Formats: sequence, C-alpha cells, structure tokens
Amino acid sequence: MPTPAMPSPMLWQPLLERALEEDVGPGDLTSELVVAAERTGQAIVEARETLVVCGLPLVEAVFHRVDPSLEIRREPGAADGLQAKADQPLLRVRGRYRSILTAERTALNFLGRLCGVATQTRRLVDQVADLKVDLVDTRKTTPGWRALEKYAVAVGGGVNHRTGLYDGVLVKDNHIAAAGGLDAAIEAVLGRAPAGIPVQIEVESEEMAARAVELGCDFLLLDNLPPAAIRRIVERFAPDVRLEASGGSGPQNLREYAETGVARISMGALTHSVRCADVALEVALLPKAEEASP
Amino acid sequence: MPTPAMPSPMLWQPLLERALEEDVGPGDLTSELVVAAERTGQAIVEARETLVVCGLPLVEAVFHRVDPSLEIRREPGAADGLQAKADQPLLRVRGRYRSILTAERTALNFLGRLCGVATQTRRLVDQVADLKVDLVDTRKTTPGWRALEKYAVAVGGGVNHRTGLYDGVLVKDNHIAAAGGLDAAIEAVLGRAPAGIPVQIEVESEEMAARAVELGCDFLLLDNLPPAAIRRIVERFAPDVRLEASGGSGPQNLREYAETGVARISMGALTHSVRCADVALEVALLPKAEEASP
Amino acid sequence: MPTPAMPSPMLWQPLLERALEEDVGPGDLTSELVVAAERTGQAIVEARETLVVCGLPLVEAVFHRVDPSLEIRREPGAADGLQAKADQPLLRVRGRYRSILTAERTALNFLGRLCGVATQTRRLVDQVADLKVDLVDTRKTTPGWRALEKYAVAVGGGVNHRTGLYDGVLVKDNHIAAAGGLDAAIEAVLGRAPAGIPVQIEVESEEMAARAVELGCDFLLLDNLPPAAIRRIVERFAPDVRLEASGGSGPQNLREYAETGVARISMGALTHSVRCADVALEVALLPKAEEASP
Amino acid sequence: MPTPAMPSPMLWQPLLERALEEDVGPGDLTSELVVAAERTGQAIVEARETLVVCGLPLVEAVFHRVDPSLEIRREPGAADGLQAKADQPLLRVRGRYRSILTAERTALNFLGRLCGVATQTRRLVDQVADLKVDLVDTRKTTPGWRALEKYAVAVGGGVNHRTGLYDGVLVKDNHIAAAGGLDAAIEAVLGRAPAGIPVQIEVESEEMAARAVELGCDFLLLDNLPPAAIRRIVERFAPDVRLEASGGSGPQNLREYAETGVARISMGALTHSVRCADVALEVALLPKAEEASP
Amino acid sequence: MPTPAMPSPMLWQPLLERALEEDVGPGDLTSELVVAAERTGQAIVEARETLVVCGLPLVEAVFHRVDPSLEIRREPGAADGLQAKADQPLLRVRGRYRSILTAERTALNFLGRLCGVATQTRRLVDQVADLKVDLVDTRKTTPGWRALEKYAVAVGGGVNHRTGLYDGVLVKDNHIAAAGGLDAAIEAVLGRAPAGIPVQIEVESEEMAARAVELGCDFLLLDNLPPAAIRRIVERFAPDVRLEASGGSGPQNLREYAETGVARISMGALTHSVRCADVALEVALLPKAEEASP
Amino acid sequence: MPTPAMPSPMLWQPLLERALEEDVGPGDLTSELVVAAERTGQAIVEARETLVVCGLPLVEAVFHRVDPSLEIRREPGAADGLQAKADQPLLRVRGRYRSILTAERTALNFLGRLCGVATQTRRLVDQVADLKVDLVDTRKTTPGWRALEKYAVAVGGGVNHRTGLYDGVLVKDNHIAAAGGLDAAIEAVLGRAPAGIPVQIEVESEEMAARAVELGCDFLLLDNLPPAAIRRIVERFAPDVRLEASGGSGPQNLREYAETGVARISMGALTHSVRCADVALEVALLPKAEEASP
Repeated sequence: MPTPAMPSPMLWQPLLERALEEDVGPGDLTSELVVAAERTGQAIVEARETLVVCGLPLVEAVFHRVDPSLEIRREPGAADGLQAKADQPLLRVRGRYRSILTAERTALNFLGRLCGVATQTRRLVDQVADLKVDLVDTRKTTPGWRALEKYAVAVGGGVNHRTGLYDGVLVKDNHIAAAGGLDAAIEAVLGRAPAGIPVQIEVESEEMAARAVELGCDFLLLDNLPPAAIRRIVERFAPDVRLEASGGSGPQNLREYAETGVARISMGALTHSVRCADVALEVALLPKAEEASP
Repeated sequence: MPTPAMPSPMLWQPLLERALEEDVGPGDLTSELVVAAERTGQAIVEARETLVVCGLPLVEAVFHRVDPSLEIRREPGAADGLQAKADQPLLRVRGRYRSILTAERTALNFLGRLCGVATQTRRLVDQVADLKVDLVDTRKTTPGWRALEKYAVAVGGGVNHRTGLYDGVLVKDNHIAAAGGLDAAIEAVLGRAPAGIPVQIEVESEEMAARAVELGCDFLLLDNLPPAAIRRIVERFAPDVRLEASGGSGPQNLREYAETGVARISMGALTHSVRCADVALEVALLPKAEEASP
Repeated sequence: MPTPAMPSPMLWQPLLERALEEDVGPGDLTSELVVAAERTGQAIVEARETLVVCGLPLVEAVFHRVDPSLEIRREPGAADGLQAKADQPLLRVRGRYRSILTAERTALNFLGRLCGVATQTRRLVDQVADLKVDLVDTRKTTPGWRALEKYAVAVGGGVNHRTGLYDGVLVKDNHIAAAGGLDAAIEAVLGRAPAGIPVQIEVESEEMAARAVELGCDFLLLDNLPPAAIRRIVERFAPDVRLEASGGSGPQNLREYAETGVARISMGALTHSVRCADVALEVALLPKAEEASP
Repeated sequence: MPTPAMPSPMLWQPLLERALEEDVGPGDLTSELVVAAERTGQAIVEARETLVVCGLPLVEAVFHRVDPSLEIRREPGAADGLQAKADQPLLRVRGRYRSILTAERTALNFLGRLCGVATQTRRLVDQVADLKVDLVDTRKTTPGWRALEKYAVAVGGGVNHRTGLYDGVLVKDNHIAAAGGLDAAIEAVLGRAPAGIPVQIEVESEEMAARAVELGCDFLLLDNLPPAAIRRIVERFAPDVRLEASGGSGPQNLREYAETGVARISMGALTHSVRCADVALEVALLPKAEEASP
Repeated sequence: MPTPAMPSPMLWQPLLERALEEDVGPGDLTSELVVAAERTGQAIVEARETLVVCGLPLVEAVFHRVDPSLEIRREPGAADGLQAKADQPLLRVRGRYRSILTAERTALNFLGRLCGVATQTRRLVDQVADLKVDLVDTRKTTPGWRALEKYAVAVGGGVNHRTGLYDGVLVKDNHIAAAGGLDAAIEAVLGRAPAGIPVQIEVESEEMAARAVELGCDFLLLDNLPPAAIRRIVERFAPDVRLEASGGSGPQNLREYAETGVARISMGALTHSVRCADVALEVALLPKAEEASP
Repeated sequence: MPTPAMPSPMLWQPLLERALEEDVGPGDLTSELVVAAERTGQAIVEARETLVVCGLPLVEAVFHRVDPSLEIRREPGAADGLQAKADQPLLRVRGRYRSILTAERTALNFLGRLCGVATQTRRLVDQVADLKVDLVDTRKTTPGWRALEKYAVAVGGGVNHRTGLYDGVLVKDNHIAAAGGLDAAIEAVLGRAPAGIPVQIEVESEEMAARAVELGCDFLLLDNLPPAAIRRIVERFAPDVRLEASGGSGPQNLREYAETGVARISMGALTHSVRCADVALEVALLPKAEEASP
C-alpha cells in the first residue's frame, strides 16, 4: 500500500499558525529568562509505544516555523506510514536550544494526535485484513482538522469518504422526509448531481434498498442494520451495487460486520474519541565547544 | 460553583469559520438538490447520555452563522455546566430546513467534543470532591482548541494552568540543564519574571524541592514522583509552598495521588484522548401550513 | 487592587500585525540605507510625564515581532498598573540598531494610547475614591481596540461593562419601543436570557424604574437623569437593585453624580476622545567593541 | 479644494470586520430577545454639533455588512468634506429594526472618530488659511487606523506625509548617529533611495541645515526649533529648499509657527489625542402597515 | 481520461473572497441605485468560442457567495473537462437580478482564465496525442493561483509536476554549483529526501546525464538541449531513467521535441502568458409575474 | 509623465504571503538538502528582452520576506516605469544562497507578469501617442490582482477606470432593462450617486447617446460601435461630454478607433491574456573568503 499524499500545506498551515499563536503567542517567557540565547542543542522526536507514524511533515513545519535556522533530519526510513516501536527515534533537530524548547509542545500535540488516528485505524484494518472490506471515515472529525484527520485515516490504511457536504451526495432520512418520500428524493439526485460527484442513498431496510436499486441507485448506505440484515442485502445486490454499513459497528464488533461481505464499513470512531499516541522529544544541550554559530 | 465565563468569541470565531469552510465549503449539494428552498423545520439538540453540557454558545453560533434567520431558543435551564440526562433537550432551532441540515454536523462536532472534556473532568473532580485538591489542565490540548478545551475543563470543575508559554513561567529539567543547575535557573527567574506572572519550578526529588524552597520558590511542580514521596514533600512544605503533582497520575489512580494532600494535580489526559460525548439533533419538518415566511 | 489580567494575545496579535504592516510594510527604507546591518544599540522606553503604565506586554511584543533576537528587559518594578513619573525608565531593549528604530513608532503608538486611557481612568477613580462607586466603561471604544481599551480601563481602576452585544443584555429605549412598552420588553428578557448573562434595563424616570423593579428587574441603567432624580431612586431601591448612572456625567461633574450614592457610573469618555500619554524611546548606539554578535 | 479619494476598501474592510466581530460577535442578544424579527424601522445618522463630515462610506459599509437588505440613502449633499451643523441629517437607513440596532454603535464609533480628526484639522487649517503653509500629519496614528486617519486629515484640508517607513526616507538624529555624522548619513541616501521616494533630512540648527543644503538636500525637517530660528532658515533657503517645522508647535501656537513662512508644519496632534465628534442615530419604528417585506 | 479532482475549496476560497472584496467591496453602487431590490432574473453562463470548460465549481461558488438564495443549475452534461462550442450554455442562475449583476464579472474572470489554461493545454496535448509523451507544467504560475492553474492543466490533459518547493526535489545548476559539483549534489539528495518525494536532477549534456545515472539517478531534467541531443539520451537511458525535456520547446516546436521519444516535456507557457477564453453571461429579467419571492 | 504611486503594500502583501505559502510552504527541500546553510551568494535580477519595468518593490518585498537579512540594492536608475533593454541588470541581492534560491521563482513570477502588463500598455499607448486619447483599463483583471494590474497599466502610461463596483457608477444594458428604460435608469443615478463618484452611461447608438445627453449625462460609454458611428458622436457631443469607446477595439485596430477623436478607449486586453515579460535571476556563489557572516 503506497503512503497517501500529504495534504497540501495550504490546508494545514493556518492551523499550525494558530497553534503556535495560542501556545507561544508573544513569547516563551521561561526559555527567554533561563536559556542563554546562544546555547544550542539537539532533540530527537521519538515514539514511546508501538504506533503508526503520521504527521512528520507537520513536526518539521512547526520547528521550521519557530526557527528557520534549525537543522532538521529524519532518521533513515522515518516516514508517515512507518510502524515504529517504543523508543524508536524518528527525527533529529539541531540548533538554538531556546527554539527547540519553544516548539516542543506544539509539535508533539500535532504528532500525538495524528499518530493516534493512524494507529487506531491500522489496528482495525488489520482485524479484517483477510476480508475484502474498506474501513471508511465520516464527517465526525475535530473541527479545523478535517484534512489532517482524513489523511491520518488513509495513512492507517482506511479509505476516505467524501470530504464534506460539497463533494459527495448522501441522501439521509431527513432529506427523504423533506422530499416527500424515497422515490422523490432519488429522482432529485440521480442524474442531477454535478458530473463526478458520487451519489449515495441511506436506507434502513431491505425493502428500501430494493426500491432504491430499482430506481437506479448503485451506492447505498445501510444505516443501523444488524449483521444478518446486511448479509441478506449483500447477497441480493452486491457486487452490482456498492454497499456501505454504518452506525452499528464499532471497534468491538467490527469483524462481525465485516464478515457480512459488505464492501465498506464507515465508523465515526475512526476520528472522534481517539487516544493520542505517546510520542516525546528527548532534548540535549550541545557542549559549548560544539555549538554552531547561530 | 459559578459557571466560568465563555471565552471571548474572538478566540473561537476563526475556528468556527474554518470548520464550516471545511465541511460546507461552496455548498451542501444534497440539501440543495433534495430539499425545496422554502421548506421549514424544527430541530432539537439533545443529550444522548448523561453528560455535563458544554459548548451551547458555539452551537448557537454555528446555526447563526449558517443562516442568521434561524430562530434559536434554549430549553429552560439549559446552559453550560448543566448535568443533562439521556434524551434531555437542550436547544430548539426553527427555520429553513436546508440550513438546519447544513449546520448539523459542525454544530454537533463542537458540542460533542466540549461536552466530552467537561464530562470527563467532572467525573474526575467528583472522585476527589471530599479532598481539597484542584484538578489542573496542561498544554496538551488539541492544536487550535486551547481556549475552548481549557474552558471545558473549567466547566467540568477543573482549574486552568497557564494558557501558554507567554503567561506563566515553568522551569523544567531542560531549562535547568541549560542554566547550568537548579540554583542558576531559579536565580534567572525569581524576581525577574514580569509582575503578575506565576513562577513554578519542576523538581524531581525531595532534595530538589528543599533547595528550591530554600532559594525562595513558593510554587513547585512535583514531576513523576510516587504518592509516598509527594506526601513527604507536602508534609514538609505545605501550605506555605503551593505544590502540584504531575506525570504519574491518571484517571485510574487519581484518588491515590489526591490523598497525599497535594494542592493541585495536573493531567494531560483532561484534554487529550478524550471521548466525545453522545449528542444528537432531532429534526422534523414543519407542516407546510405552519411554515414561517423565510 | 490586583492588576487585571492582560487580555489573551490572540485578541490583540492581529492588530499588532496590522500595525506593523501599515507602518513598516515591505521595509524601513531609511534604516536600511543609513544604518549598517551589524550596528547594535540600546533603547530605553520611558515615561515623559506622570502616568499610569499600561501596555508593556504590547511594547515587548512589537519589538519581539520586528526582531526576535532583541533582548528586552523590564526595569525593576515596571509593570502595567504602576504609577510612573516623568523620565522614569520602564523597559530596556538591546540588539540590532536597525530593528530598534523600525519598531519604535509602532511600540510607542500602542503604549501612549493605552497609558492615556489608564491614566485618565485612574485620575477619575481617584476623584471619587472615598465613595463606593464603580467607574464603568461603555461600547464607545476605538474600532479594533475593544479588548485593549477595556483592559486599560481596568488597569486604571475602572470596571468593565459587557464586552459587546453578545455577553450582556441591555434593554434601551429603542428596544422598549419595538417591544410595545416596558412591560413587554421586560417580559421578553427576564428569565429568557442565557444563564450567566446579566440583564439590565434602561429607565428614564423614577416611575419607569419603579415599574421595572416591580416586574422583577434588579439591574437598571438610569439614562440621562439629573443627580437629584438619581438620588431619589437610589434611596428607594438600593442596594437591592443595582443602579448605574449614565449619560449626564463627564470628567467635570463626576463627583456630583458619585455623591448620589449610585453604585456605578458609566462614561463613554473613558475610552473615546482620550489624550495619549507622553512616552518616548531613548536610543543609543553601542560602541562597536561592545556589539553583541547578531 | 476637491475631496480626497476614499482609501481603497481593502485597506479598511478588515478593520470593519474586526470591529463588528468584537462588538456583535455571535449575536446581539438584546435585539434578538426583544425585537420581533419582522419589525422594520428607519434611522437617521446625524451630526450633533458643527463638524466636518468624514467616514460616510464606512457608515454605509457597516450597515451593509450587518444586513445587505437595508436601504441606505444619503441626504442631499451629504458627503465627506461637508461642514455639517448640529442636528443636520446625513444618511437615512431603512429596513429590519434589529439590524439597525445591531449596527448602530460600530457605525457611530467609526464616524465619530473620523469626523473628530477631520474637524480638528479643518479648524487648524482655517487658523492659517491666509498663509501659504501646509498642515502635515505624522506616523503618530492609532495602530490599525493609518489609512483612515490620514484620509480624515486630508478631508480636513491637511496634507499627508509619508504613509509609513516604506514610502519615504526621513533621516533623523538616531540615523545620523549610526551613520557616523550628517555627511555620511546624507551620502547614504541622496541618489540611493528608490526613484520617486522623497528624501528628507532632520536638522536641529541653522548650521546643520546649511550643511545639508550644501550637500544637495532640498527637503528638510526642522526639529524642535523656535519660530525665530525657523524664520532665519526660511529666509536663507526657501523656496529652493522645502522646509517643514516639527515638534514645537501644537494647536495653541500654530499661527506663530506658520508666520515664519515655513512651507509645512507637521503635528502628531492631528491624529493622536483627538476628541471624537458628536454624532448620533435617531431610530424610529415603522408602523406595521408600512413594513416592507424583509 | 477521467476528469481530475477539483482542488479542495480551502485552497481557493480565500482567493475567491479576495476577488469579491476587490471588485465589489462595500457594494455595487450601480445595481443598488438602478435595480429594484425585488426584481429577479435569469442568467446563462455560456462559451463564446470552442473551449475546454474549466472552473464551473468556482462560478457556482462566486454566485453562491454573493447571494446564497440564487438557484444555480448546470446544463445537462456541463462539467469541467467538457469540450464546449461557441454559444453553448453551461450554467443557469436564477434569482435576485441585483445579485446576478454583482457577481457577473468576478465569475467570468475566474472562468475565462481557467478555460484559457485548459484549452491551450488540450490543444497542445492533441498535437502529440499519437506519441507517448506527457505535457508537464512548471512553477511559472500566477502568484495566488498555483492550485487552480495546475488543476486547469490537468483538466486539459496535462500532467502536474511538483506543486512547489516542498513536495519534490529538483537539483538545478545553482544547487550543483553550491554543492561543489554534480557528484556532491547527487550524494546530498539520493536516499536523503523524505520518503515519497521524487528526486530529479537537471543536466545540461549527455555526459552529465551519464554521470547522474551512474550515481543512481533515475529521473532527469534535460535542460535546454536540442532535439538531437535529447534523442541520443533517450536512446541510451530510457525507459529505465525517466526523462523530461525542458526549456527549448514551446507551442511552436512541441512536436519536434515530442518525437525524440522523451517521456515528459515541461513548459512554463502552459500557465504563464495564457490567453483567457471567451466566456459570457447572458442575463434576462423575469417578468414580474414570474418573480419568485426572495 | 511621473511614475504612478505604488499601491499600498496592504493591498498586495496578502497576495505575496499566499504566493510564498503555495510555492515554498513548509520549506525548500532541495536547497535545504544541497546547499550548506552558511554559503552566501549574489543574484542579479535582469531583463531578458526590451520591456517596461514594473514590480521592483514586489521583488524586493519577496526577497525581504523570505530572508530579512538579504541585502538588496537597485541598479542606478532602476525603477518602475524605466524602459529596460535585454540583459540590463535591475536589482542586486546578496546574502544566504539558500534564501536567494528559495525566493527566486516567486519574485520572478510577480515581476514577469507586471512587466508584461506595463510593456504591452506602453506599446499601445505609443501607437497613439500623437492623438489625445487615453487608453483605459477595465474590470477584466486576474482575480486577486486588481490593484497590481491597474498599477501596471498606469506604469505603462494607461489610465485607470473605476477600481470596482464600489467607486464608480456605470449603467449598462442590463441595468437599463431592469430600470424599464434609459430615462428611468438615468433618473435613478443622476444626482443620486454619492458625491465624488463618476457616473457613466453605456449607449449603443447615436440616438441613445443624444437622449442621455439631453437628460444631463456628461460621461458616456460607447459600446461596440464602429469607428464611423463613434466619430459622429464625437463631432456632435465632444468635448462637453466625455466619451469612451469600448468593446470593438483591440491591439490590432486601436489606431483606427483612436482617430475618431474619442477621449478614451477602454480595453479588457490590457490586463487579461497578457504575455509575461522575460525576466531572470543570475545567481552566483560568493567565494567562501568573501562570505558575510550570516
């Protein structure tokens, strides 16, 4: 599996700026008082537990933004997607000691969260690796983090659903009610969505699924159905119709849902309520003799 | 306990804008295709589990930003800090059906996360309610969310540590190394920090604590010390010296640490790795007769 | 009186950026042409008249933003809230001479304005120091400066009214007209405003005040009433009802209003039309031998 | 004198956005609670004292930004530069009553400040109208307001100095010290500044002025010289050399300086410490029969 | 060839905001004076010459941003990538007449430029459609338009080179000089660039190419070489080494270069100096009877 | 002809930031890998063909923004408006080699485009230099570039039309239709536009022109009329009425239109579809001995 492309920096640079503004703001008082301006040091970003690495470009960007004169080098092989072990070094930063301390927390806050999402996704993907099923994310992301969290899901081996309300049509129960029924709702979208936009219909029973297929739909969201019901729908319509299960499955019963043969399972839990991974920065002063000129 | 003040909207309005930009962007394709522009509806924001409410002003602001013509009313008594039960309604929104659907996910993403932080904090605070100890947050917050997450901690009954590197001095091991020792580090900050800025020293042993106090420090961070060691330091220096335990305690052993008599316990887990609370929006179409003029 | 907390830098950093953009923009032509890049100097920010210091963190932030390598040290005791005398030094800046000259005007423009607001507030507060009355600011602030000017009022010993239209209810004559009368207006807000939001009613006569109190209001704005009328209302309703006089008083007749016994007097003049305080920067070149390495 | 061009909205739109964000933020609580959404009204922006009008486009832009459906019409002849009398109507706004109340304070805060600057400038310009002297502004402007305050000075009949450090060279005493003397400083700028950039030298005595002219300077700033000294320099060098007096003159002794024959007098007091002009909004409900559909 | 994905709206929404700010700013004076607020109309966006459609989502977003109540419908089949003929309608907009006129120019300015880039790319791609060669863009894009212009190149059938300096390594002559020679430069990048980042070396002769390949490079940029030299290098190293010709070819001699067998030809002319395509908006008033309620 | 004033940096600084963000983003990978941090160099910005220089302040600002320590000096006489020859040096940059390489492309992208606009305008202006006609730009500018492209037109000797919809009234056919005819449209704007705002009416025939003049208009846009018709209108109404021809003329037949005697000719082609001028950066390493300390 190739590593997915890092999202364009223009999608996360503003968040990074905001993160530094809220943590550093007008200055790092402690480092300015305690650390002499000319002291230099070296820091190693490392994993503290087994995890899937995700967010190294952000870590580099945080250090670079705090002090463009810092020298940043990845450890050999360190890249997003790598499975790292506890105490495995990932990145080396060298330069002004003050700058390293100032950037530390913001860099780790980004890295820990993204590794957390990627690691949890990978663990779930591995649970069903023998089955042909995609694990799919949702729009239940942390506000401000949509692009980054979807990237972390992809790094973990998950599949991205639509990015937002603008690049995919998903007709839910509330839409159907407003349209005056399933038939009207489907008529409103089939052949009417802009070219290239996927159209998916949420159904709550086998009958609804059958009617949607009859009307020409080929991409359904099976909402909150038990595995047995999903299995029947899979047997009846797959693979002609793309089927996605949603709503009932979580980390604890994923396998049961996957074994229904459904092509995709989407889970909000991929991005919300995720435990941050344990990552750390080991910092060391350089002896004054070794100090690079700033 | 009075509810803490909501942070200034200027601190979260940019995040809210960004959240809508990433979820809605140029438009909600599905609603525009399926829902007639003139249909109106009513939605109720409600808790789906027992939780501490936090973030209602943000929910209001999201709906207001998506469509200023929506009528938004809180349920009687609904306010940040309220302990809500499953299925308890919190807020009522009435107006264009399309607008309600467009705003739904962003509003819930904010609410779920903030309720999650407040609820977990409250649960931990309740565990040690009979002891005189403050539960304190850290800088391990979600980048972009510092002000909001610290507010949620306060709503849950926790106490806020410094906001960032700019409004508090905290001398850690790396600073001490750079200064050339504890004495030099303390000399660099005591009486030198700007007026009104708290100065705290991180110590790793009773000896370090004793030396710091001898040099005039009255606010210490006890880093990664076991409860027994904390208790000895408390007995020796409190209440003249303000003592904060950090690093070893988590949700599972909080009480053990609290019983040492330490005045404050800080935990990164208050804001990172938090489970989002279960909140939902119940939407209903209004019969056409009842429709308000847009 | 403890110094009020500096507003979060996220509230004023954008204004600071804009100020530097408009004054410095793509560069300080004169300094770049005339001053050798490697020359260093020292500057002292000082008061030129008796004043209440306000805005030192902004001065520090301006110098820091123009050149992060500048060393900035406050004079002992210098802090917002301090009463300084003419020629009293407040802050010392050392480093690149060019950078000091580039930052000078923007730093002083912030400092002079904030000291001006704090100094005028303090002078007025001192006039009525023997009476139990709060001097309260209004929304008549310089656009873009709300948080900073309200902070300066607090530094001067004044009390902050609501920040904006979003964090306080104040029912004025125009609202009452729109509601169809005082009773309807009061009914619309009492018990309906979000929890924690103060509700205040503007009244123009003793009769209106009496009716408002009868309906349950406990916080009134006495608009444009003469001292005698205010005194009667105070005698009748205080201290059960919180009373604020507004509109007729100014720096010249403040004491007369304060002696009515009213609890609060609000004055737009605290923030608009304020004379900037006289502050200056004394700059000196360092002899080349003393030059720090940049 | 033709009215100067309003600065590009791109120069003040961000300040306007910020002003509304800080005053209105997530919403105008009082109006939303008290005023029915469908009520309409009319408001008249008017002068409350004799003043020079300045800032009408900003007032229009504030109302337009708060509610694009408001109808805004200027009174006949109302334009920036107009001398208005007390109670003279300037602008009429018609539409949603709520929107009018929400925009009121921000609109008046802009208008009052700009009218204040223009009015004070006009009064000073009028004092010396029989003499050929330009009244010139400085960089002592309110941070964030550079473009607007310089516009108000021009509306009042004043002349704008350079906008910032980037569009004019002004060699001051600190530059001369850094260059190692007047000759070196002049050599560094004459013929070296970018084409089209004015080059001005600050001098503190007749001797310095003479030396600067000898070296080819044709634009001098006479810093803190008494009228008699200025007169001598004028007689010796004008009109070949453009001469500007600065530093000693203020509103109280302007005429004495102007009578020296100097071509320009610059005064920081044109933009700092200015009294806001008295402007107001008269609001009236429209009878329900007359209400326009929103 | 599938249509490439539209870049995330977060990449172009700020440019769109800026474009409306600079064209509309505080308001469309003419339409506000001349067109009654309640008039409605219909507009058709159409091609005025044969062109490759590109930018329809931006056109929709501009109209939507100016007035969210406008109804926007694409003509059947209209999508980015479509080859349209003169007078072919693409999109229909219906609603407030004022809003249509206000948005017109900004919408067309976006559409004309993007169609221009896509159309020119398609014409060039068609010239060499029988050869296996990719037409590749460069970093010579209009500042602020990188993501959009690269998208238009892709819509026209071209291939995107790296987005910027951050997502691809390209070692040019100046880098080689700084490294002290080709060998040192190659050593510095091979195996040292972050995982997933392509590494390309610019060579100016067959000898340089041979040395680069010998050292392990598999992706070369042939800079300013004549077709005959390119052909020799292709014969010697392709297809093991990926070869890109650059610098000598333009629209006029593209085929000659393509026939050398080189895999990629990059041309700055794909994005700079492009003629905008001729697109227009046909606007018609709706008879008052047909007017939709706003 | 004096060089027009560079637009305020506040109008283009955000575009410059965006341009660097999209090209450099989190860092220049190649330079960081290949070029030692301490190497210094010198670069010369030069013309590669005969052109009118436009945009030097932007080039300076780009280099300054990438690295404030770079020394930037213009060649003698180099300024916007200068007619430069092939290989003529314009600007010299000295300092960190890495920084020079990082800034190169963005600087040239700005310069090439602005020189292109200015050069084309100058060529057209020269074609009709013996006639009293102004060449006028339009709103057909590159989104995001309005202020810069209008500046380049002015540098080339053209005349700027209104900046946007907010600072000029131009009544077109669609407005006339909405008003219900020419008379109604003219009545709506004459004497109703804000003071100082020019009012222009678009006419499509001599009869319309006559009627417009009869109603008091003194500024007409002759839309898409052939030269003969324009000449008749000129003879009948000029110079009392200001006449502008638009729509039929382009670079190829400009002179024919100019000879009609019309006062102004406006052409969208001045700013859209412009060929970028050929400009380049010659970079050279400085020998290590000559290296300035960073």
